[in-house]
Amino acid sequence: MSELRGACILGQSGGPTAVINASAQGLIQTALKQDCITKVLGAAHGIKGVLADQLYDMGQEDPAELDLLKFTPSSALGSCRYKLADPDKDDTDYRQILAIFQKHDVRYFFYNGGNDSMDTCNKISKYMQKVGYECRIMGVPKTIDNDLFGTDHCPGFGSAAKYIATSCMEVWQDAHVYDTGMVTVIEIMGRHAGWLAGSAGLASWMGYGPDLIYLPEVNFDMDQFLADVTAIYKQTGKCMVAVSEGIHYTDGSFVSEGEISATDGFGHVQLGGLAVRLAEAVKQKTGAKVRGIEFSLLQRCGGHLASGNDMAEAYLAGQVAVEAAVSGITDRMVAFECDRAGGYLCKPKLIGLTEVANVEKKVPRQWINEAGNGLEQAFIDYVLPLIQGEPELPRKHSLPRFVQLKKILAK
Amino acid sequence: MSELRGACILGQSGGPTAVINASAQGLIQTALKQDCITKVLGAAHGIKGVLADQLYDMGQEDPAELDLLKFTPSSALGSCRYKLADPDKDDTDYRQILAIFQKHDVRYFFYNGGNDSMDTCNKISKYMQKVGYECRIMGVPKTIDNDLFGTDHCPGFGSAAKYIATSCMEVWQDAHVYDTGMVTVIEIMGRHAGWLAGSAGLASWMGYGPDLIYLPEVNFDMDQFLADVTAIYKQTGKCMVAVSEGIHYTDGSFVSEGEISATDGFGHVQLGGLAVRLAEAVKQKTGAKVRGIEFSLLQRCGGHLASGNDMAEAYLAGQVAVEAAVSGITDRMVAFECDRAGGYLCKPKLIGLTEVANVEKKVPRQWINEAGNGLEQAFIDYVLPLIQGEPELPRKHSLPRFVQLKKILAK
Repeated sequence: MSELRGACILGQSGGPTAVINASAQGLIQTALKQDCITKVLGAAHGIKGVLADQLYDMGQEDPAELDLLKFTPSSALGSCRYKLADPDKDDTDYRQILAIFQKHDVRYFFYNGGNDSMDTCNKISKYMQKVGYECRIMGVPKTIDNDLFGTDHCPGFGSAAKYIATSCMEVWQDAHVYDTGMVTVIEIMGRHAGWLAGSAGLASWMGYGPDLIYLPEVNFDMDQFLADVTAIYKQTGKCMVAVSEGIHYTDGSFVSEGEISATDGFGHVQLGGLAVRLAEAVKQKTGAKVRGIEFSLLQRCGGHLASGNDMAEAYLAGQVAVEAAVSGITDRMVAFECDRAGGYLCKPKLIGLTEVANVEKKVPRQWINEAGNGLEQAFIDYVLPLIQGEPELPRKHSLPRFVQLKKILAK
Repeated sequence: MSELRGACILGQSGGPTAVINASAQGLIQTALKQDCITKVLGAAHGIKGVLADQLYDMGQEDPAELDLLKFTPSSALGSCRYKLADPDKDDTDYRQILAIFQKHDVRYFFYNGGNDSMDTCNKISKYMQKVGYECRIMGVPKTIDNDLFGTDHCPGFGSAAKYIATSCMEVWQDAHVYDTGMVTVIEIMGRHAGWLAGSAGLASWMGYGPDLIYLPEVNFDMDQFLADVTAIYKQTGKCMVAVSEGIHYTDGSFVSEGEISATDGFGHVQLGGLAVRLAEAVKQKTGAKVRGIEFSLLQRCGGHLASGNDMAEAYLAGQVAVEAAVSGITDRMVAFECDRAGGYLCKPKLIGLTEVANVEKKVPRQWINEAGNGLEQAFIDYVLPLIQGEPELPRKHSLPRFVQLKKILAK
């Protein structure tokens, strides 16, 4: 437990979530309380802000304003999608990061993001070890995709799942209002893992959700899809479908990138999204009235539907990262260990950055039904605790009151 | 004030809103308390349910369940888009409606809907007068489009406006997270009137909203649009645009139905929606990264973001319709008269069905800026009171708890 004095940097990286700023709040507020942390710096646009020496002095922010961070979706400090080179091939960025760390006497580095960001965090950690610069480096998980390895789930996922389930339930009500036929296809994010699309299954479980759900974990078969939809449509006059944006054929090619048609012979460029084009294929096949809906950015930035558990856990992840680093730990990512037997208990734990970087966690095949077009109860039991709780959101004029940071650059 | 004893029918018609069931609740609960109303019947799918004698006996519903109506978006009884013929040309439907009224001794008829529905309501009212069947007929306004004549605003609009403003604010946060260029185009409902797209201006007014907003009230000019977007994009690296689905060229043709291209020579069918296609045109012109987002059905069924004022006023409209009819009034629609000077006061009033049927109310030109790409403060002052208040929503498993009706058919 050696005391290490110096500044800390927090960086936010990758796509937005409803609660990434809750982790930032947990991190910043905990760091500001530590005697050994001399300055709390927020990097503008993640590692790009470190490279460019664009670091905000978080100690100069109004404390009451920092309390609003957790209610503000997306990354308040700015984010990036920047991949660091292999340091053995090109160490330019690493030498610059080291120079900035030295300039500000940075001894703690916290990086909040998903798979790619944990890779960045891991590379920086290993580089600093190699060059012998004493610095404690911790990853804080974040991703709506929920595909990080070694943790029960990721902060950000629960809120996105809640948005998706709630919106599916409401769209179900809308799509069932007329006594005329209707097929609705909803496209949900998730390029490689089906956690988000699977969350539409919560709506089905509640009685108002998709009849069919297709995840990337099962190879997509267009003929089977059209047969599935047609069967339900013929029986009930309605069919609601949720698909993951990442559904792909057996050869691995994405359905969204190929030509979609129920009949052959189409040859033109299709600008529409996956939902619109699958809906069109259903229309060609069945003659049904169809509608394609893409939840788009809304599902990842819907702070007004944030899950209370998710928000609290995101804050906790930030807090634990600082406490662990101050206590002497480095080169780890904060993760969660959960117990769902007889209630829901979520405890933080730490795992090695090397273990987590670049590994993707997918929905277990046995949580998907045999036909590959719906979810089993095990999936519902897994997700349900993660969407619980409604935070009391601060509002102004009955609209969200987002955090307003001064963003004063550190000298 | 002649007392008229008999049954009443409530029908819901047209597209869903977040609060149409609040009007149904106000109507049903008030009607159930009237001594002169012998039975409260809910028509399945509006006038189609009357024609088919599909009438639910609302008195057999659990009163506690009826309390959940107002928190359930879309039409709980089912809706329709059914246009009655001119009775002078074909009175088949009218004779059937009269027969059903006689069968159930219906003396009160309440029809809840928008423009087309008020036309239906008006035609039935005039027919019953003509044939001398004593029946009090009242329209109850409903439309997210807010285009009904003779009323300050329509129930349903405030909640949709709140959904749109909130979602725009959240998307703004998301669209500004990277330091790389980005143009976002959002498509909002409203075929002929720009009230909904204009509501995106609330987000801009809050500091997190579209830079440009285009309504159908101003003729659309593609060159000017591309110039507007390019200027802002070049200056700030970002541009967020909201467009009404009903924007049209000077010749009246809808932008959504034509070919959209920044350069000439495209010739293929474009399946994508308006937002995607306008975004693509911007990409061709500027090379910017673009994203098209369609709020789609979500904006009209987003009960979880319902406005408290809207919900209360929708309930009131139903209640007033029954009270007025019981007191001897007929052939009217419930409307609102509002005072925004020194607070917000909304009072119900009644206007003639003939006056309101088939007349569309548009956004006044002086509430739109001179360039035709943004809103003036007068528009904000008009909309702001309509989105106020957050109802305490009933939930189960942190998801919406919708009403569950038994729907027992009347004998």
